[in-house]
Amino acid sequence: MKIYNFSAGPAMLPEEVMLKAQDEFCNYGGTQSGIMELSHRGPQFMEVLATAKQNIRDLMNISDDYAICFIQGGASMQFCMIPMNFLPADGVADYADSGTWSAKAIKEAQRFGKVNIVGSSKETNYDRIPVVRHWKPTENAIYLHITSNNTIAGTQYHTFPPVHKDVPMIADMSSDFMSRVININDFGMVYGGAQKNLGPSGVALVIIRKDFAERANKDLPTMLRYSTYIEKDSMFNTPPTFAIYILKLITDWMKDQGGLGVIEEINNTKSEGLYELIDRSDFYSSPVYPGSRSKMNVVFRLPTEELEAKFVKEAAQNGMTGLKGHRSVGGIRASIYNAMPLAGVETLVDFMIQFEKENG
Amino acid sequence: MKIYNFSAGPAMLPEEVMLKAQDEFCNYGGTQSGIMELSHRGPQFMEVLATAKQNIRDLMNISDDYAICFIQGGASMQFCMIPMNFLPADGVADYADSGTWSAKAIKEAQRFGKVNIVGSSKETNYDRIPVVRHWKPTENAIYLHITSNNTIAGTQYHTFPPVHKDVPMIADMSSDFMSRVININDFGMVYGGAQKNLGPSGVALVIIRKDFAERANKDLPTMLRYSTYIEKDSMFNTPPTFAIYILKLITDWMKDQGGLGVIEEINNTKSEGLYELIDRSDFYSSPVYPGSRSKMNVVFRLPTEELEAKFVKEAAQNGMTGLKGHRSVGGIRASIYNAMPLAGVETLVDFMIQFEKENG
Repeated sequence: MKIYNFSAGPAMLPEEVMLKAQDEFCNYGGTQSGIMELSHRGPQFMEVLATAKQNIRDLMNISDDYAICFIQGGASMQFCMIPMNFLPADGVADYADSGTWSAKAIKEAQRFGKVNIVGSSKETNYDRIPVVRHWKPTENAIYLHITSNNTIAGTQYHTFPPVHKDVPMIADMSSDFMSRVININDFGMVYGGAQKNLGPSGVALVIIRKDFAERANKDLPTMLRYSTYIEKDSMFNTPPTFAIYILKLITDWMKDQGGLGVIEEINNTKSEGLYELIDRSDFYSSPVYPGSRSKMNVVFRLPTEELEAKFVKEAAQNGMTGLKGHRSVGGIRASIYNAMPLAGVETLVDFMIQFEKENG
Repeated sequence: MKIYNFSAGPAMLPEEVMLKAQDEFCNYGGTQSGIMELSHRGPQFMEVLATAKQNIRDLMNISDDYAICFIQGGASMQFCMIPMNFLPADGVADYADSGTWSAKAIKEAQRFGKVNIVGSSKETNYDRIPVVRHWKPTENAIYLHITSNNTIAGTQYHTFPPVHKDVPMIADMSSDFMSRVININDFGMVYGGAQKNLGPSGVALVIIRKDFAERANKDLPTMLRYSTYIEKDSMFNTPPTFAIYILKLITDWMKDQGGLGVIEEINNTKSEGLYELIDRSDFYSSPVYPGSRSKMNVVFRLPTEELEAKFVKEAAQNGMTGLKGHRSVGGIRASIYNAMPLAGVETLVDFMIQFEKENG
């Protein structure tokens, strides 16, 4: 039986990427060594690094005004590096609070300076992206921070807030990075852990406008300054070479797919299939406001928690794993990142129809 | 032709480990997913994490007085986390300066408090471990920091400094971690990047005495506090799951070898073979004081830089790669970590004898 893994992350990677990485695992380019056994300053890894960066530039249409950095510690380390670099004690940063991960970013920023929460959907259990026209931005905010996709609540910005020239927008894109076309020029910085759409856990991709990076506090430990990664091309110390190698293979794969426009269309088709079924059913229901529904993490409820437990169990027996909702909110969550093929979503839809017939 | 990779790190891993990881790369435990595609909170990775930790406890004979943590950012991140957690602005930390990496650790510590360099071999180009009986320790130092093996200079502590009850000793063991038997109870903390003896780059192993960890500054960003890793079992955020999985396989392999006592004996045999040849030859010479020679990184010189370049080139043609010395010091460096088999060293010794005959 074919197994589809709907885990929220670490998540499934494209089958072609996994097979290629397996094939050359012990013998990269005829060296009789795996890429993870080779020096990070040798020609093999240097080429991997350069190609990964160029692929990202090509796919996202990124100019030389931006630097592409690979930093360890995941998005959680960025939650502290951002205010540490940019937010002085007497400065104000604007944060939109759209879920658990936004709240964690806010908590870290409050150690360094003042945080103004421009909008929050906490009172409605994060069932939507806070409505942007009601936001209360600070004049002269140091930056605006948003979370573009909320893995736990299953929400996503369908359009981004308007750009204010003097207030760089920073987006945590951990769970929808490179899943759709965005205009990078609207952002001062975007970042995310790789373990949803880009690779294994253990590396964060940070894309930062160079003139914004120059505003950073210079009196910081070497490993916590963005300038270290920019000036040393993410090679001040040994980078996580294998994670970057997988990211390189995944961005190769994205180009082979036809780029982010094509990938976005497939992602639209995948999520629409699920939301249509949920909306026409009296058995399944979405806790998420329609205009905020995530195309990456489709969360839904069944009539009772008992039925949800039965659903998760029987889905697993039928080859669909990782469907249990986050422990903090319960319910069902189908994570359908770039690597989830349409066939996986169709299998889930068929199972949901059958499960409703038997239990509805 | 069999290729032996003498790279200083990332470095070769045991062949059995690479083959096992390749075999189950796309299908871990029958899940049809690779371990890197599975949730870090699922049963498969939780077992990997628990086994990796237990293996380390067994191999190093570590009691429950110590916590075992996996932290991203390599040893370089530890260079700043250590003083950030422990060194107040008015406190003094003792550092021994035995090479480039010690100097980097010292530089980061100086941002936070006062650093007393107890001893240094900088004036003699780091050709030895600074002689401990000449050290000038601070009374009431917050901690003492040493670098147990110096990858670039090719030096290593053969015996550790005496233990002072009130001054916890911290050792950067990046390049000789688990290569020999040590008494962990002599240390407040030992740490190292994995990419020499323990696995791929992208994870640092930190072993810290819990009562020492409790002395840390509590007012720090979440990801930069040791207490976060201790309390959350290195799972506050998504850890680098694949790197920890490889580390688990490597520690399984170490147990299969018979443990650190057996591994230490093999490492002694490997390095003695090289040093004996160097010492009896007029062609090869060691720049390192005999009592400080590293068993992990054997550095040596040839009569001229031209001959060194020829040596590196012909060695590569004969299947021995990664022998060029660090760019800052030149010469030849043979890194012979745990995974380098005796046969690899014997091949190198035979080549060196032949090269001397032809060029001596």
